[in-house]
Amino acid sequence: MVKSLAPLFDLQNIARVLITGNGLAGQDILSVSQFDRETLSYIFGRAREMREMVKKIGGADLLKGYVLTCLFYEPSTRTSASFIAAMERLGGSVIPITQGVQFSSVSKGETLADTIRTLEQYSDVIVLRHPDIGSAQTAADYADIPIINAGDGTGEHPTQALLDLFTIREELGTVDGLKVAMVGDLRYGRTVHSLTKLLVQYDVSLRFVSPEILRMPMVIMNEIIDAGMDVRETHDVADVIENADVLYVTRVQKERFTDLAQYEEVKDQYEITPEIMEKAKDKMIVLHPLPRVGEIHYAVDHDPRAAYFRQVKNGMYIRMALLAGVLGKA
Amino acid sequence: MVKSLAPLFDLQNIARVLITGNGLAGQDILSVSQFDRETLSYIFGRAREMREMVKKIGGADLLKGYVLTCLFYEPSTRTSASFIAAMERLGGSVIPITQGVQFSSVSKGETLADTIRTLEQYSDVIVLRHPDIGSAQTAADYADIPIINAGDGTGEHPTQALLDLFTIREELGTVDGLKVAMVGDLRYGRTVHSLTKLLVQYDVSLRFVSPEILRMPMVIMNEIIDAGMDVRETHDVADVIENADVLYVTRVQKERFTDLAQYEEVKDQYEITPEIMEKAKDKMIVLHPLPRVGEIHYAVDHDPRAAYFRQVKNGMYIRMALLAGVLGKA
Amino acid sequence: MVKSLAPLFDLQNIARVLITGNGLAGQDILSVSQFDRETLSYIFGRAREMREMVKKIGGADLLKGYVLTCLFYEPSTRTSASFIAAMERLGGSVIPITQGVQFSSVSKGETLADTIRTLEQYSDVIVLRHPDIGSAQTAADYADIPIINAGDGTGEHPTQALLDLFTIREELGTVDGLKVAMVGDLRYGRTVHSLTKLLVQYDVSLRFVSPEILRMPMVIMNEIIDAGMDVRETHDVADVIENADVLYVTRVQKERFTDLAQYEEVKDQYEITPEIMEKAKDKMIVLHPLPRVGEIHYAVDHDPRAAYFRQVKNGMYIRMALLAGVLGKA
Repeated sequence: MVKSLAPLFDLQNIARVLITGNGLAGQDILSVSQFDRETLSYIFGRAREMREMVKKIGGADLLKGYVLTCLFYEPSTRTSASFIAAMERLGGSVIPITQGVQFSSVSKGETLADTIRTLEQYSDVIVLRHPDIGSAQTAADYADIPIINAGDGTGEHPTQALLDLFTIREELGTVDGLKVAMVGDLRYGRTVHSLTKLLVQYDVSLRFVSPEILRMPMVIMNEIIDAGMDVRETHDVADVIENADVLYVTRVQKERFTDLAQYEEVKDQYEITPEIMEKAKDKMIVLHPLPRVGEIHYAVDHDPRAAYFRQVKNGMYIRMALLAGVLGKA
Repeated sequence: MVKSLAPLFDLQNIARVLITGNGLAGQDILSVSQFDRETLSYIFGRAREMREMVKKIGGADLLKGYVLTCLFYEPSTRTSASFIAAMERLGGSVIPITQGVQFSSVSKGETLADTIRTLEQYSDVIVLRHPDIGSAQTAADYADIPIINAGDGTGEHPTQALLDLFTIREELGTVDGLKVAMVGDLRYGRTVHSLTKLLVQYDVSLRFVSPEILRMPMVIMNEIIDAGMDVRETHDVADVIENADVLYVTRVQKERFTDLAQYEEVKDQYEITPEIMEKAKDKMIVLHPLPRVGEIHYAVDHDPRAAYFRQVKNGMYIRMALLAGVLGKA
Repeated sequence: MVKSLAPLFDLQNIARVLITGNGLAGQDILSVSQFDRETLSYIFGRAREMREMVKKIGGADLLKGYVLTCLFYEPSTRTSASFIAAMERLGGSVIPITQGVQFSSVSKGETLADTIRTLEQYSDVIVLRHPDIGSAQTAADYADIPIINAGDGTGEHPTQALLDLFTIREELGTVDGLKVAMVGDLRYGRTVHSLTKLLVQYDVSLRFVSPEILRMPMVIMNEIIDAGMDVRETHDVADVIENADVLYVTRVQKERFTDLAQYEEVKDQYEITPEIMEKAKDKMIVLHPLPRVGEIHYAVDHDPRAAYFRQVKNGMYIRMALLAGVLGKA
C-alpha cells in the first residue's frame, strides 16, 4: 500500500514535497482492522514528521484550501478539539458542528445519509462522532469524500487506538516484546478493545486486570488465543505491576455494579497510586484515554512514567498524519 | 450596476485581479426583490468562477484578513455550514455563533440592534438567521457593515432562492422557456415564495401542485397573474410530471392538517417515486431545499435528474460570490 | 520589563519586525494587578498598532501557525467573539469551545486541571471563562502555556478593564487629571472593581453613583483612600454629570432589591437620558461594559459622546495586543 517512505516535510523547503500520493489517499478511516503493520509504521513515520514540524514552526500550509467538517452528534470536547487543532495546524479550515446537531436538521427527521451527502458538498473530509454502532460505515457508504470515524457508539474509535499504539512505540522505542497490562472496565471499554485488536499484530504479552463482571469479552479473548499470544487475566493490579511495560488504565464505573457493596469491595484494586507505582519498573508507562475521575491519583501525574498527557498530544500528531494522508497530501 | 464582467479569478494569477469594484460592494442582502436579471446574471457568473476555482485549487486568498460573523438565533446546520465553507474557501475567517445565542447576552435582554452593533466591531460582514420576520432589515438599519439575511422567520431567505435559480440555470442551460412545477406545501414554504418572486422576472410557465389547504398564497398568485405569466394550480403531481422541466419539491407536513384522515388521503399525491419519474422528461431536474423526510423516495437519488445535492453545492458557490461581492472583492 | 517601543508592525514590511521579545511573552493574564503604568503604556501602544493594521489591511500573519483554545464554561458571545476575531485577524487559528462544555468531558467529572492539561497539548494559548473565582489561577498553575482570564465568576476580567482604560486614554488623550464617574451597581460589578484598581495608578478623581445597597465595597474604598485619591460617593447621576469626563455606566438590576418599591423609587436616578446628557461637558464620554437593558436610553446612541461601541472595538485591539504579547510576537 505504501510505496514511499520519503519524509512528508522537508523543513527547509515545505512547498516542494507535499503533493505525492500514498495508500491512504481517498480512504475512509473506519476501523483498526484496516491497518497492517506496514501501514501503521508508515502512519507513525508521518506522525513523527508532524511532531517535528509543530515543534519547529507550529503549523504548515499542507492542507490550505481544504475544509474539514467535524460532525459530532454527541459532544466530545477532547476529540473534536484534537481534530480541529490537527486540521488548523496543517493550514486547513474547519466547519465545527460539535454541538446541537440534535436540534437542527436531524431533529427534522433527516437521515444520516442525507446529512452526510449535504455536508460533503462543502467539505473535503468529514470526521463523524455518532452514538450508533455502524454509523461511520453508513456515512462512508454514501459519501464520495473520506470519512474518519471518531467513535460510533460501542463500535470503534480507531484514531484513539492508533494514538495509543503510537504512544507506546514512541515512549518505549518498540512494541514487540512488551508486556501490556490493561486495567479497569475491559468489558465495555471501546478503547481497550480497539487497542487489543491492533496489538494482536505484534509480539506482546497481554495482562487483563478487571472485576469479574467487567472482564474482556469472549470474542476478543478468542482472537488473542487464536493468535497464540501470551495472555493472562487477573483481578488485581498488584499482580501485574512489577512486570508491566505498559499500564493502560480505564475507569471502573460505579454504575456498572448492581451491588454497590461489591463495587466498594473491589474498587481499590483498580486505582493507580504512588504506592503502586513504587513497585513498577523504572522504564514503563501509564496510559489512560481520559477523562479520568480518580482512578489514577493526581500525585502520580508528577511521575515521569505518567504518559497520559503526552498521549493526548500524540493524538494531534496522529490525526494530522491521517488527515494529510486521506487527502492525498503525503 | 455591474460594469465589468471580467473574470473574478484569473487562475494563473489570482493576486492581480482581485481588487476591483462592483455593484454589490457594501450592500445588504435582505430580499430577492433586490435583484434584477442583470444583477442575477452577474452573480451567477461570479458563482461559476467560484466553482472553477474550488474545483481547481480548493480555496483562494480573496477574503484573507476579512472576518464573517455567523449569528444564528436558531440552529441551521446546513445554512451555517454553507456560509462557513464559503468564507473559509475564500481565505476569510469566521466567528461561529451558531448555537446557544439564546443563553448568552440575548437572554440578558439585549436588543438585536445592540448585539449587531457589538458584533460589527469585530467583523466585516454578518450573516443573520433569526426567527422573527423583519429582523434582517432591523439589523441592516443599525449596522455599518453588510448584513446577509439567512432566513428571518416566515420572511425571506434570499440566498436559498438565488441558489435554486442558479441550479436551474446551470442544469438546464437557461431559465426562459421552462415549465417549473412546485410541489408540496406552497402556503407556508418560504423557499417556493422567494423562488417564485425571482422567476417572475423570467419567461417561465408555473405549475403549483398542493393540497387545497396548502395552496400558494393569494398575494403571490396575484403577482404572477399581474406579470401575465402562464400559471396553473393542481392537486396531483401526476398532472404536471410529463411536461415539467423543473420539479421543485417541498414537504407536506402532517402537522398542517387538523384532520389526519385528510392527510393520509392526499399525501401520496406529493411523493416523488421512481414510478412517477418514469413519466418525466429525459431532460428535467428534481430540486428540493432539504432536509427531506420521504417526500422524495431514496431510490430516486440514483436518477441523474435528481439534482438536489448538486443544488446544495451550488449554495456554497452562490454564497462565495455574494460574500466576495458585498466585501467589494470582485 | 519593556525594552523596545519600536512599532510592532512596519506596515511596509510586516514580516521583518515580528519576532522580537517583550515582557509579556509566556505570561498569564490573570488580574489587573499584574500591570503597572509602564506595561499599560506598552500594551496600549501595541493596541494602537493593531488598530492601524486592521484599518489598513484587515489582518496579518503575525500568529500564523498558532492555535488559541477558547474554553468558555459559561457562554459569553461578546467576549468569545472578541477573542476569536483578535486571533483570526492576526492569522492564528481557534478551537472554539464556547458552548456545552458542561455536557462533555466535564460532566464526566473531569477536573479543570485535567481539562486544561489536555487542551494545552493542542494549543499555544488558552482563554478561559469560568463561573468560579480563582479558576483562572488554577488553570495557570497547571498549564505550561499562557492562560488568559476572560472572567472567573465574581473575580476578575482583566482584559475588560484594560479595554476600558484604553478607551478612556484614546478618547480623551490622557488619563491623568480626569474626573471618572462610575454609575449603577458598584457592589457586584466586576468591571467597575477592576477598572478602579487600574485607575489607582493614575491621578484621577473618582465619583461613585449608586443606590445605598449597591455601594462600592469597603475593601476597594480603602484602597482608593490609602492611595490618597479624590473620591466621593453619591446617590444621583445629576450630582456628577456636569463635571464628569468619563461616565462609566452599569446596570442596576431589579433582582438586587428585596423591596421592589425601593427599586422603583431609585431606578430613574441611574438612567442616562438625552436630558441628562445636556448637562454634561462637550468633551466627555459615556462608557458601558454591555449588554445594556435600558440604563442608557437608545436616543443617547446618536450622541458623539456615546463611546460604548467604540469601546467594544477597542476590546479587539487590546486582545490582539495581549495575544501577540503572551505568544512572544511583539
